[in-house]
Amino acid sequence: MADLRIALAQIDTCVGAIDQNTAAILEWTRRAAGEGADLVAFPEMTLTGYPIEDLALRASFRRAAWDAAADVAAQLEREGLGHVTVVLGTVGTSETALPRGAGAAERAASGSPADLPTNRAVAIQHGKVVASYDKHHLPNYGVFDEFRIFAPGTEPLVLEIAGRSVGIVICEDIWQDGGPVATLGALDEAGHGIDLLLVLNGSPYEEGKGHVRTDLAARRARETAAPVAYVNMVGGQDDLVFDGGSFVVGPDGAVLTSAPQFVEDLLVWDLPERTSSAAGDAVATTYPTGRVAAPLHPDEEVYRACVAGLAGYVRKNGFRSIVLGLSGGIDSALSATIAADAIGGQNVVGVSMPSTYSSEHSKDDAADLAKRLGADYRVQPIAPMVDAFQGELALEGVAEENLQARVRGVVLMGISNREGHLVIAPGNKSELAVGYATIYDAGSIGGYAPLKDVDKSRVWALARWRNNAALDAGEIPPIPESSITKPPSAELRPGQTDQDSLPPYDLLDEVLDAYIEHAEGRAELLARGFDPEVVDKVVTLVDRAEWKRRQYPLGPKVTSLAFGRDRRLPVTSRWREPVE
Amino acid sequence: MADLRIALAQIDTCVGAIDQNTAAILEWTRRAAGEGADLVAFPEMTLTGYPIEDLALRASFRRAAWDAAADVAAQLEREGLGHVTVVLGTVGTSETALPRGAGAAERAASGSPADLPTNRAVAIQHGKVVASYDKHHLPNYGVFDEFRIFAPGTEPLVLEIAGRSVGIVICEDIWQDGGPVATLGALDEAGHGIDLLLVLNGSPYEEGKGHVRTDLAARRARETAAPVAYVNMVGGQDDLVFDGGSFVVGPDGAVLTSAPQFVEDLLVWDLPERTSSAAGDAVATTYPTGRVAAPLHPDEEVYRACVAGLAGYVRKNGFRSIVLGLSGGIDSALSATIAADAIGGQNVVGVSMPSTYSSEHSKDDAADLAKRLGADYRVQPIAPMVDAFQGELALEGVAEENLQARVRGVVLMGISNREGHLVIAPGNKSELAVGYATIYDAGSIGGYAPLKDVDKSRVWALARWRNNAALDAGEIPPIPESSITKPPSAELRPGQTDQDSLPPYDLLDEVLDAYIEHAEGRAELLARGFDPEVVDKVVTLVDRAEWKRRQYPLGPKVTSLAFGRDRRLPVTSRWREPVE
Repeated sequence: MADLRIALAQIDTCVGAIDQNTAAILEWTRRAAGEGADLVAFPEMTLTGYPIEDLALRASFRRAAWDAAADVAAQLEREGLGHVTVVLGTVGTSETALPRGAGAAERAASGSPADLPTNRAVAIQHGKVVASYDKHHLPNYGVFDEFRIFAPGTEPLVLEIAGRSVGIVICEDIWQDGGPVATLGALDEAGHGIDLLLVLNGSPYEEGKGHVRTDLAARRARETAAPVAYVNMVGGQDDLVFDGGSFVVGPDGAVLTSAPQFVEDLLVWDLPERTSSAAGDAVATTYPTGRVAAPLHPDEEVYRACVAGLAGYVRKNGFRSIVLGLSGGIDSALSATIAADAIGGQNVVGVSMPSTYSSEHSKDDAADLAKRLGADYRVQPIAPMVDAFQGELALEGVAEENLQARVRGVVLMGISNREGHLVIAPGNKSELAVGYATIYDAGSIGGYAPLKDVDKSRVWALARWRNNAALDAGEIPPIPESSITKPPSAELRPGQTDQDSLPPYDLLDEVLDAYIEHAEGRAELLARGFDPEVVDKVVTLVDRAEWKRRQYPLGPKVTSLAFGRDRRLPVTSRWREPVE
Repeated sequence: MADLRIALAQIDTCVGAIDQNTAAILEWTRRAAGEGADLVAFPEMTLTGYPIEDLALRASFRRAAWDAAADVAAQLEREGLGHVTVVLGTVGTSETALPRGAGAAERAASGSPADLPTNRAVAIQHGKVVASYDKHHLPNYGVFDEFRIFAPGTEPLVLEIAGRSVGIVICEDIWQDGGPVATLGALDEAGHGIDLLLVLNGSPYEEGKGHVRTDLAARRARETAAPVAYVNMVGGQDDLVFDGGSFVVGPDGAVLTSAPQFVEDLLVWDLPERTSSAAGDAVATTYPTGRVAAPLHPDEEVYRACVAGLAGYVRKNGFRSIVLGLSGGIDSALSATIAADAIGGQNVVGVSMPSTYSSEHSKDDAADLAKRLGADYRVQPIAPMVDAFQGELALEGVAEENLQARVRGVVLMGISNREGHLVIAPGNKSELAVGYATIYDAGSIGGYAPLKDVDKSRVWALARWRNNAALDAGEIPPIPESSITKPPSAELRPGQTDQDSLPPYDLLDEVLDAYIEHAEGRAELLARGFDPEVVDKVVTLVDRAEWKRRQYPLGPKVTSLAFGRDRRLPVTSRWREPVE
């Protein structure tokens, strides 16, 4: 019995693009076959893209996905690749009862389909779909809504390939103790377990999650006494970023080979035959090692997640170019740099929209940035439009500040309508969390906000990392030094700085993390040693900001985190964290 | 044994307003006690408001809710009302394992609380919380996300009150066959079942749902051989409307008494003692009947749902007034009328913002409407601002049309900032579904869109119903007849009408209902007998509109239905219904 060559195809799919995903599966299977692979594994829901949300409930979509799986099988057979076993993800249909809590009665009354979709893996061999597995554990927390749309599977799947037993599960199935993996860990009557556990994943990026995944896979490898092959998808999809980083761990928990993050990759690894003694007893098998991707610096990892997210968004939504306002400040400078890294500086339009309160150095910094990026730079003063509004409305105070900001939004939308660019919003997570922003302004309108999950402290860190990376590569740093070093200001009134209204950002960001990400209350925040005055200030700002945002839910949403946890808050809530 | 007097307190709570909800519970309990009630039942999650979404995960919020339940008990005892049994809804904590699919491992890894909240009913007697019940069936479809945040209960609850056995369940528990109701239907060793099934509800309004609820309750009443008392909440909460309509059905399925929809109400009903023969055998008990609310005309029901939704939104978010653009068209006319009915015409600001293309009759109709409503009417021409933008940007075609529309949005936001009114968006469901709208214009910005779940055909029907209701009451009809009868037009270019771009609205709305609400594909639409050309036109328009909206997800959201089913679609999706 020879080695079984396994190829983990870490690819970038697109939700709903069944034809395009099918073509990618065929292309990567050809490539893997060219490298001698016997088994090619694709990520979770490869054919349909992931996550498909309520698209799963549309019968015509499900039919198209089922036809596509048959097409893949037939096409591979036609090309003489029928001997390769392909495992891919798609949408299935449950033949089991509806899950508890899924509202069978009301679903039936409301005309929803009684046959719930499933999150399915199928195995293809010799022109046919030969086996299927429905995901058992359907995550329904954070960014996941799978229990909402899918029925859980109940059966395990072990595929026999060239004399090896390959257990197949999907993503969350290995995050839960017990379940299908425990079943797969049991030995058969002859005393044999599985030879490999294959896990198809659509695991979104979170900072530092790589180690959590490998630790978990190592645990499952020990439980099943078999190596675990973990294939993850890659690329930006809506407000999620998938980072790839596919790998194989041995039964002893060691990482045997791994793919880099944020790029498509084919990770090939040979599963050796199971070593037996002369008497036929199992003895310890030695597993080969392959290439191992070096871990990224935390700032590089986050920066590349931002780039991957924006690049995927632009491409998958059919845009070719981006427009944003350039104020000379750090948020728009970093956003423009991410945009240039995502789609090329020549496809970025930066618009300086100076007002009466804009400083000369701000305008210079914006122009300098655009030049360094090779971006299309334009200057569009807003005074004529602001004056026209003020001639009619005579707004004062914050209403006047907001007017300036919104006129900039209308300018960007006009340019977008005329020229077809995607408008992006440079607002960062800290200012959005405390409401230091104008609804419908140039910082919050548009299709994508690359920094909405990056707090202000991290914005500076990423800017420094990006400039240093350029220096290391012998290139000109993209971001003007003064954009990084000057005190942050909205420049909507004379001499304004962010710290007129907010605590220092390093302190603010620490409190925000505890209060928002960890849902801690005042008592827990004080127990961490934060100053009570700062705690009460921040808690009050966040609660007020959420209140203001709730008043305008048709406006920008800022509670969803691209690579953190998703919070869903009631639009109307009178709840306020009690403060002194 | 005397009758047991039951009071169903159909009240309007507010999410997060624990103090205010507590005060309401005390006040309605006093009132019920004044009417001699032995048992007062409140709706689902009374103390916390409903639905609380991820607020459930905040420990400080849960602690406040638990303290409030104890406060209610203590206060009632202090007031000499300890003898009254109060059953109310709140948030609890699970002592059971995490539910399947809820991601125990990843939750633990991510620092989320391991003790999941529950959707709880508590019974209060003599100054104490004496019993509690955790909802078993957690709906996780449509507008519901309960399985995401709550752990399911596993135990039934039967409360003994003055010699009667009262089974208690919550909302979805009666929508599922089996489960706690089946347990409650079993007889004890003495051959006795429960005397009453009490159901606490937070059941959102959907057109015609009243009958579905009473039919379902009748089924459960027959199963348990006991009357079912169904208490529902009332009022607008975020994008949901709760319609009340509480009732009692007898074991034979007949409605014995019922409360009206859309108003707070105390429905009092006497549970008689169980009739026994001289030998002690149970014989058929005769149940008393009480007042029964007359059903509303379908158009009145929908109209009042719109009013209740907007009224709740304004009040619960701390607004006192509304501003909207008045074009003279039917959408803004109906929206303004709903606003006037919700908060009084004197609290509505209607702004006519004529452009070069606005007809004289449109301006006259807007002024006439405002006068009939007693609204604050203002005229704000947009030409100076549009000219200022055009002097700088020189936009053409659709970009120019959108510019006019967005300038109106900036005007409304400026007035809102200056004067504190809530901006409402008059866009209707049909035009939003097919993308016949401008992102960030006066029809789509703001905090609430009262017609976003009302299709255009229904907009006209509601306008006619409202005018006729005024005539019936001897009042002046609020909506000028010409706003109802003239051909709909956006008036963004000369001679423009909606039907230049769209099929007739009655046909469009039928196809939209099948394609969007029922998720039917082209094959199913053709099988219904729709003309293939119309089907392909509508399907293409909807898919394109969703595509355009996905390009601007930071803009207005229109996929959520205030009193229909909620659809969650991926932001980026290449899926298109295949057309010829």
